Amino acid sequence: MTKTNNHLFFQTLIVPMLLMTALAGNARTAKPNIVIIFADDMGYGDMSCNGHPTIRTPNLDRMAAEGQKWTSFYVAASVCTPSRAGLMTGRLPVRTGMCSGKRRVLFPDSKGGIQSSETTLPEMLKANGYATGMVGKWHLGHLPQYLPVNNGFDSWYGIPYSNDMDANSTKIKEVNKNKHNPGNKGGHWYHPKREYWDVPLMEGEKILERSPDQEQLTKNYTGRAIEFIRANKSKPFFLYLAHSMPHVPLFRSDKFKDISTAGLYGDVIEEIDWSVGQIMQTLRDQGLAENTLVIFTSDNGPWIRFKTLGGIAGPLRGGKGSTWEGGMREPSIFWWPSSIKPGIIHEMGSTLDIIATAASLTGAKLPETQLDSYDLSGTLLKGEPSPRKEMIYYRGTEIYAIRSGSFKAHYKTKLGYKNDLEEHKTPLLFNLDMDPGENYNVAKDHPDVIARIEKLRTQHEAGLTPVENQLEKR
Amino acid sequence: MTKTNNHLFFQTLIVPMLLMTALAGNARTAKPNIVIIFADDMGYGDMSCNGHPTIRTPNLDRMAAEGQKWTSFYVAASVCTPSRAGLMTGRLPVRTGMCSGKRRVLFPDSKGGIQSSETTLPEMLKANGYATGMVGKWHLGHLPQYLPVNNGFDSWYGIPYSNDMDANSTKIKEVNKNKHNPGNKGGHWYHPKREYWDVPLMEGEKILERSPDQEQLTKNYTGRAIEFIRANKSKPFFLYLAHSMPHVPLFRSDKFKDISTAGLYGDVIEEIDWSVGQIMQTLRDQGLAENTLVIFTSDNGPWIRFKTLGGIAGPLRGGKGSTWEGGMREPSIFWWPSSIKPGIIHEMGSTLDIIATAASLTGAKLPETQLDSYDLSGTLLKGEPSPRKEMIYYRGTEIYAIRSGSFKAHYKTKLGYKNDLEEHKTPLLFNLDMDPGENYNVAKDHPDVIARIEKLRTQHEAGLTPVENQLEKR
Repeated sequence: MTKTNNHLFFQTLIVPMLLMTALAGNARTAKPNIVIIFADDMGYGDMSCNGHPTIRTPNLDRMAAEGQKWTSFYVAASVCTPSRAGLMTGRLPVRTGMCSGKRRVLFPDSKGGIQSSETTLPEMLKANGYATGMVGKWHLGHLPQYLPVNNGFDSWYGIPYSNDMDANSTKIKEVNKNKHNPGNKGGHWYHPKREYWDVPLMEGEKILERSPDQEQLTKNYTGRAIEFIRANKSKPFFLYLAHSMPHVPLFRSDKFKDISTAGLYGDVIEEIDWSVGQIMQTLRDQGLAENTLVIFTSDNGPWIRFKTLGGIAGPLRGGKGSTWEGGMREPSIFWWPSSIKPGIIHEMGSTLDIIATAASLTGAKLPETQLDSYDLSGTLLKGEPSPRKEMIYYRGTEIYAIRSGSFKAHYKTKLGYKNDLEEHKTPLLFNLDMDPGENYNVAKDHPDVIARIEKLRTQHEAGLTPVENQLEKR
Repeated sequence: MTKTNNHLFFQTLIVPMLLMTALAGNARTAKPNIVIIFADDMGYGDMSCNGHPTIRTPNLDRMAAEGQKWTSFYVAASVCTPSRAGLMTGRLPVRTGMCSGKRRVLFPDSKGGIQSSETTLPEMLKANGYATGMVGKWHLGHLPQYLPVNNGFDSWYGIPYSNDMDANSTKIKEVNKNKHNPGNKGGHWYHPKREYWDVPLMEGEKILERSPDQEQLTKNYTGRAIEFIRANKSKPFFLYLAHSMPHVPLFRSDKFKDISTAGLYGDVIEEIDWSVGQIMQTLRDQGLAENTLVIFTSDNGPWIRFKTLGGIAGPLRGGKGSTWEGGMREPSIFWWPSSIKPGIIHEMGSTLDIIATAASLTGAKLPETQLDSYDLSGTLLKGEPSPRKEMIYYRGTEIYAIRSGSFKAHYKTKLGYKNDLEEHKTPLLFNLDMDPGENYNVAKDHPDVIARIEKLRTQHEAGLTPVENQLEKR
């Protein structure tokens, strides 16, 4: 156990070993391209290949069939800002100050953001000779020093925080006066218009416009991403395409209007699926597919309080904002023709692991700091067991649950949108491999497992150092 | 509406039209073979391709990728006997006397069964020159006149009812005295042994043995099915392989012991998946694949009260015994290389439709009786819209819910295993395409839909004629 526990505190991977792994595959150069396509609030159950009965995702399904679908792939938090901080740094948000129990994400009045002392994934790859481009939603701070272009990305086009921010309350109040009228049923969320939200669309450090036409976002992001790929095809590149959708308010372009029987939400997912197909086709057309790792996942689970405007977690419990599986286990696919061993991976992985995996695959030098990142390349390339054996589920700065192997112990539970916090003196314990819905508490049968997880928790907490909270600054 | 409604009462398909459809495909003879592989109590969410996170079903996944996965495919009832009666006759169980609110299935002391006045699917095909074979669980009556060999099948090897019947209560009581001891935790369901159940294994009308070695059932059924295919490869055949698993008590052969991280239930599903692969491989090896329609589905949803010994309904609500979607919407795949148009079908279909579809595909003459069966061949072969636009959800002899298009109205709701019957004066109304989990009641917004469904109900009930109940006879 000790050795495994240590992995949670200290990044023990050594660079020569990484290089050996990087050279072990076939049809790959030492510096493959890396593309991350990130959805916003998409649920585990929202892909056809994860069992959605009506939403059509043929491109994601194909990506899964040709690559690896991971069924226990986690994000670092169940809400936007801390989840994205975990992806960019490979560090639990509690180490970077990017989580809080009070203000759970950054808002337009926030003064905090990702610290310059953090080495981000694009910074690591840039130092290794990569072109780095970002398109889409950032949400790690909107003051200049926190923006993507000052944190490792050569270029950025997108929005600095969520698409429901800078809400124009006057306009929204006005329209919602009539929210019981036919044709306006449900108000502004159900009949969203660009002018209800003043969120800025930016390029680099410049605001291009306020209240952009959100109907064009998915399409325009995709176009920008394709331009980046074409412009950088002669050198190694890292592309981070972080869609603003399917976060409410939901928008899609004309071609996708009313095409899904699952309604507006279905339309939006189907446009994201189209976007995935466009990226894959571009990589094929440019002859880059066999030298590019593409990762698709989402920042957190579905926003259940928005009912049919939110996604579904499929067999999992809970959604966005909660530490039940539905909040933090994501639809996840890795694609890299001729290098990835196709299959379905049941073992654990996390967006936290992308930085160590990227270092391993590209030979980049990992940041010299305390990482929570495992190198998944052995699983991706050779079908080896995943090195990740634990997952710590934070809500804000507090540990709510810990998974060790098949078992997950909940110390506290809370759905994201209800005042239903429960503390469990004896943790709830679920065998997730046998009980993915977290329905059958087996704490009584496994006091040994609870003790093992409790020890993990104590060791993890002993390794934490205080850090300035970025989310509470205004 | 009138035209559509009539379809619920009168089988309006005309034989010449059926023949035209039968000749429309390619690579098919006029008399394709038909194979039905039926699982027992398998849940909608229990296939990898329907999103199960840990159970591995590579053969079903392949079958789905090469064929059509149907995501709204229903059985005629949420428990065994009436569901199977619907499959065999294409008639709602309320028309055949094969359902009851009191004794919901047939038991070893039952005196009833499927009536000789019913024309079964194998009888229809046999009259059209088909060899007909059945392997596995029947559950439509165990007195001689009700057995498969007296209802259309040339041969039968299997068990007459569920594998948990003829329970040896003395032995079970004995073992359950120690059910809190380590090694015997949970008692006889969790540590099943053949001697706890005296269910007979039969061939034709003969009992081969009582308390058969249930660990061998899935394997032996598969072997018998393969023998039937090989023996009949020179003529058109119909094979009905009705697995006894994953109905509790769960058993699997040595090769499948402890291979799944999902536990005993996972092992059992993985053996069924193996069986599916064996059947498909046999069809390929014998050069029959391109002339054989294979249908995989289950008799009803997962038996939730057995917790991790039962399956999961994935995104759907409820399970076996209930008229929530989880009880009656099944994992369903149609496979027929070079004839079926591969894809995912979101529209409705039912095991009730198999008889009309089989008649259409083979040119067999449909029974001259009131059917509830739609010809799905246009959807299978040409991707046309499904002709089924309604589904009536019976619990016993009562209508609990009706689906019309995207909408489902619940008049009554009850989980299968709780004393929680609720009657809804204003029916609950769900848009299943947008809300597969039946979470968001939209009755207030759609009084028109409720009125339309109410009219369907009235018309349907007016078309019913009294019939002798078979399940209450002892």
